[in-house]
Amino acid sequence: MAEPHRIKGVLAPVVTPVKADYSADMERLIRHCRWILAQHCGLAVFGTNSEANSFSVNERMAMLDALVGSGVDPTRMMPGTGCCALSDTIQLTGHAVKLGCAGVLMLPPFYYKDVSDEGLYRYFSEVTQRIGDARLRIYLYHIPLLSQVPMTLPLIERLFTTYPQTVVGMKDSSGDWSHTKAVLAAFGKSGFDVFVGTEALLLAAMRHGGAGCISATANINPAAIRTLYRDWRNTDADAQQDMLNLVRNAVAKYPMIPALKQVVAHYSGDAAWTRVRPPLTELTAEQVHGLLGDLARRAFTMPGLRPDAASEG
Amino acid sequence: MAEPHRIKGVLAPVVTPVKADYSADMERLIRHCRWILAQHCGLAVFGTNSEANSFSVNERMAMLDALVGSGVDPTRMMPGTGCCALSDTIQLTGHAVKLGCAGVLMLPPFYYKDVSDEGLYRYFSEVTQRIGDARLRIYLYHIPLLSQVPMTLPLIERLFTTYPQTVVGMKDSSGDWSHTKAVLAAFGKSGFDVFVGTEALLLAAMRHGGAGCISATANINPAAIRTLYRDWRNTDADAQQDMLNLVRNAVAKYPMIPALKQVVAHYSGDAAWTRVRPPLTELTAEQVHGLLGDLARRAFTMPGLRPDAASEG
Repeated sequence: MAEPHRIKGVLAPVVTPVKADYSADMERLIRHCRWILAQHCGLAVFGTNSEANSFSVNERMAMLDALVGSGVDPTRMMPGTGCCALSDTIQLTGHAVKLGCAGVLMLPPFYYKDVSDEGLYRYFSEVTQRIGDARLRIYLYHIPLLSQVPMTLPLIERLFTTYPQTVVGMKDSSGDWSHTKAVLAAFGKSGFDVFVGTEALLLAAMRHGGAGCISATANINPAAIRTLYRDWRNTDADAQQDMLNLVRNAVAKYPMIPALKQVVAHYSGDAAWTRVRPPLTELTAEQVHGLLGDLARRAFTMPGLRPDAASEG
Repeated sequence: MAEPHRIKGVLAPVVTPVKADYSADMERLIRHCRWILAQHCGLAVFGTNSEANSFSVNERMAMLDALVGSGVDPTRMMPGTGCCALSDTIQLTGHAVKLGCAGVLMLPPFYYKDVSDEGLYRYFSEVTQRIGDARLRIYLYHIPLLSQVPMTLPLIERLFTTYPQTVVGMKDSSGDWSHTKAVLAAFGKSGFDVFVGTEALLLAAMRHGGAGCISATANINPAAIRTLYRDWRNTDADAQQDMLNLVRNAVAKYPMIPALKQVVAHYSGDAAWTRVRPPLTELTAEQVHGLLGDLARRAFTMPGLRPDAASEG
């Protein structure tokens, strides 16, 4: 069974603010992380929605150092550490473990397609053995639409069976509930923690023994998502889920990362938040108008988000 | 029109030998590069078939240093330098330019899918401006099957028009001759150098104004491919192309990277060459038997490949 102190609940793949020269804007990142933590959500920094793969391993290590150095609690963090190169993944993962992070969210190597389960097993196995630290907790990151490299059930089973203290869970961003349900049915009762990749599936996941969700929208709507996580057994849970979906659907009509940054920019009054690192691009003026209008009609707010915009980075 | 000294002809995406601990085996890499150069082919180190994305930027820079340090001529090299992260691409590209490489082969950032031409333009534009070195020569790497991020004709045109001295060519690994032909027709006469990604299209490319090919099989069959490049106007060119295809087809039935390494291992008598870095896996015994049998029946040889195997790395 899972240790009682394992990280669970709602985590945000924290969007990464950038300065005009596209370097990471640490001041805004730390402030946003603190706001998310204050809503009782955890920090899956360096997720897909963090533009993680648009930053080098050195940049990501420096961000982790700055976050922990600023007092952000590493036991509330599950940084993404899966890169294409075995050596990169080992370096970044080792750094996260050394800093005391609760776990790491690990993409499979995603350049080569049609790789075998045997090859992926060797990859994760090599990472685990090279780190060689009992504190390492790996959450496998299944996001076939972007990685194009799926984590199959036989592969999950082999890794969980071989490294039951280390490969302790996954994030399922397939959006395919039948897949999530199959993973939960197969491994959920053995202490394998399954996070869904969207709060749209949070209630369903909790009813089937899930560990929570790691969702883009937790960057802007963390309190309400966290409330459903806490109250999923309550009679109003389905109504809460419907409310979450309204916000989710308003944002998900647009490219997710620039849309999230636009929402943070608008509700914090800090236009610097809208920047993305190439190859991504900002929303068009028309998209911004549509997105903010939809949210306003839903009376969406981000309470506690610092209203006094910091100076331009 | 293109400068006369631009790199052209046949280049090998050099397979990267690894030691038992999966680190790059520099001794074998240098030896293999020298053998390819001796067949009058160039070195597209860090290509797809080099397992480039399985190595960190630091590992790739160290390999470049070691190659140039050992006397390998950088003007015969077009290293792959395109990474997911803008910062990684800038660092690795800058290093290649500093070492005097003839050019760099640049993948688009390949984690995010469905990115816009505008976003890709900003990415390549930013790299070009950050490097800020008149010696920089970028060859765009179009390999949609693996990158899942195509380089469209409008994007190529915009980059070539904006940076005519820098974005000077491409490698087309689409395998789609109609696409290659369209690029050649649009930009070939203006000095844009198009390399095809397989020698199976070499003769066709040369007849339409192509610059050569960068092909996996140039790791094992460089002399014959180079001969067709030199002799493409000769009356026996079609017969030469047919002979090249026989070798190509024998290898291409199997996963390309482990197959190439198996062939090098066999014809050099050096079993250490068979190793691949995870997530790739070696060929099965049955595959090895089939591959080597097919090559033997074609009386395939690798003349000059050092027959005395070095000690196990």
